[in-house]
Amino acid sequence: MLINEVKALVFDVFGTVVDWRGSITREGRALGKRKRIEHVDWAEFADAWRGTYGPSMNRVRRGELAWTRIDDLHRMALEDLLTQYGIEGLSEDEKDHFNRAWHRLDPWPDSPPGLTRLKTRYVIATLSNGNVALLTNMAKWAGLPWDCILSAELARHYKPDPEAYLMAADILGLETSEVMMTAAHKGDLKAARAQGLRTAFVPRPFERGPRAQIDTSPEDWIDVVATDFEDLAQKMGA
Amino acid sequence: MLINEVKALVFDVFGTVVDWRGSITREGRALGKRKRIEHVDWAEFADAWRGTYGPSMNRVRRGELAWTRIDDLHRMALEDLLTQYGIEGLSEDEKDHFNRAWHRLDPWPDSPPGLTRLKTRYVIATLSNGNVALLTNMAKWAGLPWDCILSAELARHYKPDPEAYLMAADILGLETSEVMMTAAHKGDLKAARAQGLRTAFVPRPFERGPRAQIDTSPEDWIDVVATDFEDLAQKMGA
Repeated sequence: MLINEVKALVFDVFGTVVDWRGSITREGRALGKRKRIEHVDWAEFADAWRGTYGPSMNRVRRGELAWTRIDDLHRMALEDLLTQYGIEGLSEDEKDHFNRAWHRLDPWPDSPPGLTRLKTRYVIATLSNGNVALLTNMAKWAGLPWDCILSAELARHYKPDPEAYLMAADILGLETSEVMMTAAHKGDLKAARAQGLRTAFVPRPFERGPRAQIDTSPEDWIDVVATDFEDLAQKMGA
Repeated sequence: MLINEVKALVFDVFGTVVDWRGSITREGRALGKRKRIEHVDWAEFADAWRGTYGPSMNRVRRGELAWTRIDDLHRMALEDLLTQYGIEGLSEDEKDHFNRAWHRLDPWPDSPPGLTRLKTRYVIATLSNGNVALLTNMAKWAGLPWDCILSAELARHYKPDPEAYLMAADILGLETSEVMMTAAHKGDLKAARAQGLRTAFVPRPFERGPRAQIDTSPEDWIDVVATDFEDLAQKMGA
């Protein structure tokens, strides 16, 4: 039975565990207030920043950039966005602080209690494209009780590259079939499944804001579909 | 001031955080009882097993062995010791279970409460030669509230090689001077200090049993000397 075979759950983080859009919007508004920047729609800015994420990782994937951490990809993108939005007068320290808003993302409300329940029965670890420092700081900020911080950084391959999923099973000393990838995104789950991992789908309908279209439909090939992490804990017998 | 500069404490684990000798002795005695092995002094066996640790890592360091995890070094040593002690009749599963006794080491009594206090102010992480899976499982067993599991495995260099200490600062996104190595062993601290890390010495006089001679004397070059982790938390303002 699935819940007796699975030993560890590994989690996508941005969007699945934490609300990046709401959090970056909040940080942008606070910055705007402090610096009297009144012409920026910070939710749109958050979407634009997040929009650079896939293309930046693709530059690494194609070898145009040497291995580069998300912190540094975020920072490169921030410089471009500040120019694009006509935001001026930020010191280096202020830019650094804003860039590290990605270390201060708030959890979905069910994330801390659901993870706490899952932790009683399983090893729970991140498996994010975020770098280790970002994920470690975020866990303290958001109260996420990870047993272990795993990151694409350790494989030097960004998800959905196979190496990231294989690294997770290998470093946990487990078979891929003993590890369950948990994500709000089917592409992540599909890539994990191709390497032999189990899959749990926890759709986050508001990840991209109240009006965005999000694919929340179940699929036959997914092992577990849950409405949130409390429901996942319930379904996984924790 | 030191406590304002330090951002993370990284910890040696075997001997510093957990009592390997008492725990392996306990596991050996339980195995002996189950399998009616009556001729073995399990404390001596624990010492002999631990005695293989340095020489095994040196084989990796000299390149005689490709990178090999502590779990596998422990297992190779266990095979030799079983022969040497004339212990027969263990199945593969029983040997595996005994080898994983190193995942089930008990903490010194002050470790969980001291770490819990330190965690309120600092990032706390392992920096052990134990592999990630071993340290992750041990944390669940022993109730150790690490923010992050760091291991020589991530650098593919065993302490006291410089690479292990530099990896810790790098992956935490910190300067070496913002990271404090905490250990019961001066060799570990000396090697960390040579790479620019801060140092905390927490001697564990009973690591090698009640009668062993242990060097517990302070040194001028060590930043903080503490009697246990509660005392360390106190001295570090946590």
